[in-house]
Amino acid sequence: MIIMKSDATPKQIAQVVKEVRKYGLRADVSKGAYRTVIGLVGDESKIPFAHFAVLPGVKEAMRIEAPYKLISREYGKFFEEVSEPKVIRVGNMGIGGDEPIFIAGPCAVETKEQLFKIAEGIKKAGAHILRGGIFKPRSSVHSFQGLGAGGSDKAEEALEWLYEAGKKFEMPVVTEVRGEAQVDLVAEYVDMLQIGARNMYDQDLLTKVANKNKPVLFKRHFGAGIEEFLSFAEYIAAEGNKDIILCERGIIPIGKGKNYTRYTLDLAAVPAIQKETYLPIFVDPSHGTGRRDLIFNMSCAAIAAGASGLMIEVHYNPQEALVDSQQMITPDELKDVIDACHRIHRLIAPRRNEKN
Amino acid sequence: MIIMKSDATPKQIAQVVKEVRKYGLRADVSKGAYRTVIGLVGDESKIPFAHFAVLPGVKEAMRIEAPYKLISREYGKFFEEVSEPKVIRVGNMGIGGDEPIFIAGPCAVETKEQLFKIAEGIKKAGAHILRGGIFKPRSSVHSFQGLGAGGSDKAEEALEWLYEAGKKFEMPVVTEVRGEAQVDLVAEYVDMLQIGARNMYDQDLLTKVANKNKPVLFKRHFGAGIEEFLSFAEYIAAEGNKDIILCERGIIPIGKGKNYTRYTLDLAAVPAIQKETYLPIFVDPSHGTGRRDLIFNMSCAAIAAGASGLMIEVHYNPQEALVDSQQMITPDELKDVIDACHRIHRLIAPRRNEKN
Amino acid sequence: MIIMKSDATPKQIAQVVKEVRKYGLRADVSKGAYRTVIGLVGDESKIPFAHFAVLPGVKEAMRIEAPYKLISREYGKFFEEVSEPKVIRVGNMGIGGDEPIFIAGPCAVETKEQLFKIAEGIKKAGAHILRGGIFKPRSSVHSFQGLGAGGSDKAEEALEWLYEAGKKFEMPVVTEVRGEAQVDLVAEYVDMLQIGARNMYDQDLLTKVANKNKPVLFKRHFGAGIEEFLSFAEYIAAEGNKDIILCERGIIPIGKGKNYTRYTLDLAAVPAIQKETYLPIFVDPSHGTGRRDLIFNMSCAAIAAGASGLMIEVHYNPQEALVDSQQMITPDELKDVIDACHRIHRLIAPRRNEKN
Amino acid sequence: MIIMKSDATPKQIAQVVKEVRKYGLRADVSKGAYRTVIGLVGDESKIPFAHFAVLPGVKEAMRIEAPYKLISREYGKFFEEVSEPKVIRVGNMGIGGDEPIFIAGPCAVETKEQLFKIAEGIKKAGAHILRGGIFKPRSSVHSFQGLGAGGSDKAEEALEWLYEAGKKFEMPVVTEVRGEAQVDLVAEYVDMLQIGARNMYDQDLLTKVANKNKPVLFKRHFGAGIEEFLSFAEYIAAEGNKDIILCERGIIPIGKGKNYTRYTLDLAAVPAIQKETYLPIFVDPSHGTGRRDLIFNMSCAAIAAGASGLMIEVHYNPQEALVDSQQMITPDELKDVIDACHRIHRLIAPRRNEKN
Repeated sequence: MIIMKSDATPKQIAQVVKEVRKYGLRADVSKGAYRTVIGLVGDESKIPFAHFAVLPGVKEAMRIEAPYKLISREYGKFFEEVSEPKVIRVGNMGIGGDEPIFIAGPCAVETKEQLFKIAEGIKKAGAHILRGGIFKPRSSVHSFQGLGAGGSDKAEEALEWLYEAGKKFEMPVVTEVRGEAQVDLVAEYVDMLQIGARNMYDQDLLTKVANKNKPVLFKRHFGAGIEEFLSFAEYIAAEGNKDIILCERGIIPIGKGKNYTRYTLDLAAVPAIQKETYLPIFVDPSHGTGRRDLIFNMSCAAIAAGASGLMIEVHYNPQEALVDSQQMITPDELKDVIDACHRIHRLIAPRRNEKN
Repeated sequence: MIIMKSDATPKQIAQVVKEVRKYGLRADVSKGAYRTVIGLVGDESKIPFAHFAVLPGVKEAMRIEAPYKLISREYGKFFEEVSEPKVIRVGNMGIGGDEPIFIAGPCAVETKEQLFKIAEGIKKAGAHILRGGIFKPRSSVHSFQGLGAGGSDKAEEALEWLYEAGKKFEMPVVTEVRGEAQVDLVAEYVDMLQIGARNMYDQDLLTKVANKNKPVLFKRHFGAGIEEFLSFAEYIAAEGNKDIILCERGIIPIGKGKNYTRYTLDLAAVPAIQKETYLPIFVDPSHGTGRRDLIFNMSCAAIAAGASGLMIEVHYNPQEALVDSQQMITPDELKDVIDACHRIHRLIAPRRNEKN
Repeated sequence: MIIMKSDATPKQIAQVVKEVRKYGLRADVSKGAYRTVIGLVGDESKIPFAHFAVLPGVKEAMRIEAPYKLISREYGKFFEEVSEPKVIRVGNMGIGGDEPIFIAGPCAVETKEQLFKIAEGIKKAGAHILRGGIFKPRSSVHSFQGLGAGGSDKAEEALEWLYEAGKKFEMPVVTEVRGEAQVDLVAEYVDMLQIGARNMYDQDLLTKVANKNKPVLFKRHFGAGIEEFLSFAEYIAAEGNKDIILCERGIIPIGKGKNYTRYTLDLAAVPAIQKETYLPIFVDPSHGTGRRDLIFNMSCAAIAAGASGLMIEVHYNPQEALVDSQQMITPDELKDVIDACHRIHRLIAPRRNEKN
Repeated sequence: MIIMKSDATPKQIAQVVKEVRKYGLRADVSKGAYRTVIGLVGDESKIPFAHFAVLPGVKEAMRIEAPYKLISREYGKFFEEVSEPKVIRVGNMGIGGDEPIFIAGPCAVETKEQLFKIAEGIKKAGAHILRGGIFKPRSSVHSFQGLGAGGSDKAEEALEWLYEAGKKFEMPVVTEVRGEAQVDLVAEYVDMLQIGARNMYDQDLLTKVANKNKPVLFKRHFGAGIEEFLSFAEYIAAEGNKDIILCERGIIPIGKGKNYTRYTLDLAAVPAIQKETYLPIFVDPSHGTGRRDLIFNMSCAAIAAGASGLMIEVHYNPQEALVDSQQMITPDELKDVIDACHRIHRLIAPRRNEKN
């Protein structure tokens, strides 16, 4: 990491960046109100920091040994405008700020009517952002793959519905991109791009998505430790895009016998991750538990654990849903969840502010 | 399960029990206000239920196929005095009732002074029950094994301190029994017997502890699924002791790289278990996270998830503790935790009552 | 699944396929020596099998409920030329036949000299196929990402080396494709395309790779159960490409404390998978253990468990390797491994033939 | 660890032991052919090694920081008579020597006839040691708990059968002790005491069993890492009993969907453990896979991985077995397994000798 003097000139900054590239690394230039910091992307062991420390305009040059640096609190603290967590703009919403944010919607978009009816319901229930799956990652090729599987016309039509629903009900919209070929198309229609748990390790997809310069909702793989999760988020940050919302959605359950929950929701990851990074962290209790009857409790627990928001799957008639029907709740149930979460958040907020 | 008529006589009940034993099974006789229910302990496939259904005084006789029956909600609902969860008396405390209960104290009892100082601190902080480890299960034979390792005189002295501290500060006390040989001694001094996570599978210990007719704090093994956890709790219930407080304390973390928490606290197990059994469930965020700086958040989350109480390790000077120093909090920090938990519990309590 | 009569005409087959498509499913037409079988890709619940059973040329029409069908032994047994496992041609090699096959080479291609020197070494040691990583999936963006990270010129140069080394030392070559954008380029140079463990769930990549009509080396994700692994292999088969070599490479280690092996090599998956599918299964002891000193034992064990071959990382000077140096063995050590494996394979081969 | 001079007198050794005890630790005195070594049991941080180094007869005194020391290769190498692995006598058998040893028998002893018939069968098949479960650890209190559950008369009768079967068919016998109260009784009848996976963490049981001065067959818990496994074996060694045979029997399977094997057999643990300790390691493919049809392959694989022997469950009519019927093989199948294992062992033995 190279910290520039507060009066460093653009030319001096450019000179340092040029020098960094000579060593085969990339430079992440972060301009704060008072100071510019340059993070290095690549193997720092090749860099002669003593040489960099004496370049014009440089205040300090130091090696950071960690698989994630650009998203670390250590790096973030040099940006005086970065609160903790960082507030990320998604459409007209600020994620990571004083209020918890609720993303809701159907697991899979099925028809325009279904989407609009659900959008209306979640808006009334107090949700802020509309989600709807179009390119669905599925464990079996023989299952419904989402409308995105029907070819690009069908996919685009579904994306238009999502766009229109967002406009009509005044909510930013998010959908998942599962493959590189979908990124350009999807980015035209949505306010935030989601990378699903199954794609967490797909660094080529991460890189492509990062470059669309839209916020990224980045879900933890169910087999990934926290270090891996943050290290792959770093792939997005390394492209210069730090508008990343992390999302815990459950890890592989262990233990013999039948599983009582679909995954193990790792809520301690929420505060543990907050000690590591300035990025906000969400929780998805729908996939995390796979059980409609646990959503209320685990939503309250996630907010109490410190989550910046939740992502919840909603359907006006869960039994009818083509995908994941056993984990959907209704708009009315969502309202209960959101109300309870706001009350819990207000209870613990004073402490949060005091501690940070 | 055999449900007796409301006017069944003691003689008729005794007859059924006698008949059950003929088939090599044991009978769990549960007398409710209006009705007596007889649970069968053993392999029910040998039992001719049609024969039992026509015995005098029998209302209904049916097979239940499950590894746990006596602790199931299905069985419990025949006892009209059993609320959900069941309220279990520990000294003057009721666990599982309207208020969350807090068990606190040092991981290991070190000296009388240490124990009394901590007992005083947690009492002021609002804790209800005092814990203190004397027989410590440890991963290495080369680590401090608790005062119980010093021979029976030393163990008894430490148990006396615990007893006296409980009397002085008016709190019931609990300690762990690790081996069968300790059960009789420990039961003379404490209000509740704890079976630690490492001993969850030790069915001989469970059986011996159950027969002391004291409440049992029963912790989930870190490698156990929920079905196993409940199936081993059934070993205690099968001895006629249903005063069991379950405790989630974290399962094995998965994922490569360093672990950010010592275990993965499985908070979704709390509501999932509540759907299965009438027994109350506690959470131990100290062992569950292994990190002092996560205790506040995860305590709030556990209560929000619906836990009936918490078990938290406390030391006035955590750095000095001989065991688990990195996960202890101070009495002052405990007070913050307890206050926040009460507030969260009050927020969600109305819903709990309405739903049950 | 629809089984055609032995004298069904091409027109009758085409008619069935057309009918299948009417219901929104795809048809996998497998022509055996005596009979044609049509597998259905998609949700079979929509299909009226009774209607299909009476179409001209149809012998039998039946629903198969499983997340993988096209790769199942049940489906494969209708192809009388399919032995178990199926023999897959890779260049001049047959994988899954009478002899175990050894894929070896450097984890990452570094220079032409390094690659050729290793290729020469493994050829002498008795290896059959040359591997060399060019697009490296890495847990940290700050680590060496393979020559493929240097842009398409550099990637193509490295691919040319691989192609040339294969020609010179008369071995088919394989390399990993990590992202969709690399597939077309890589397919021009190699005999087999590898999908790495981290990309196992990347169904868009799988689909794209499948369509290159080259054999696919498909590695199990470290968090995937066997059912998931086979269900994602089915994505490749659903494109009409059944030249799939499965590869077990270790799953997430569990248990507290330091890991003695990088992953847990799940060797029982080898015979368990062989009961499910006709596809051959390989083992990668290099990634599976992460320890050079365990490669010999675990290679022998993998062959004894029934593996059709091994993939082993080799470097003439392991300490110098830029990636995974701690798990590489030398060509001399490889020779020991291959010799021992052949001897073990001959010992157990008679039983295999007799049992199948 | 304190290494005595080769001419140290018994009095000097006693003096060192006395000094060790002053610091609250225990001393493990190991007399080799040329030298005596004193291992310390307890927290070594309290010991002033400089002081010990100058006591009469002391050659060297050094701190060893590890959760297991007395069973480590580092400690064992001071005993010149200790080969690797150590050969442990069980009756007339030597475990850990030049030939693999096979322990076989029914999961649970059911009747005298059943036991004798199986004993005869496994003897003919080439097994060396007879196993038979009497005190069965079971996941459900409602399952058959073994004859040991019928009270001490029944248990003793079953132990007598085991003893007699051992005498008649000239095989040492082993059975599991599940609780402390069973240890004295069981030790009178058997040549080796088994501690099952579920009791691995039960340090009071370990200590009691260790003191019977019989060899101990010690199984790894399914949730235990290798470090934990060895650290608990150290509890046995700390009592002065180093006749410990370790046994890998499968760890918790991970991954979603149905499990294809009951546990994940961790065969890489075999060579990994051999690098750490001089104790021999066995494998139990019966519990490890839970599938009769995988026993042959996984037995071969275990021996190829370097195991010193196997423990296999056998029944002349597996379907009839009261416990674990799906994982039993017949005596004829056992013969196939043993023959193949001997051949594989002979193949890899030369290398083993050369490398050690």
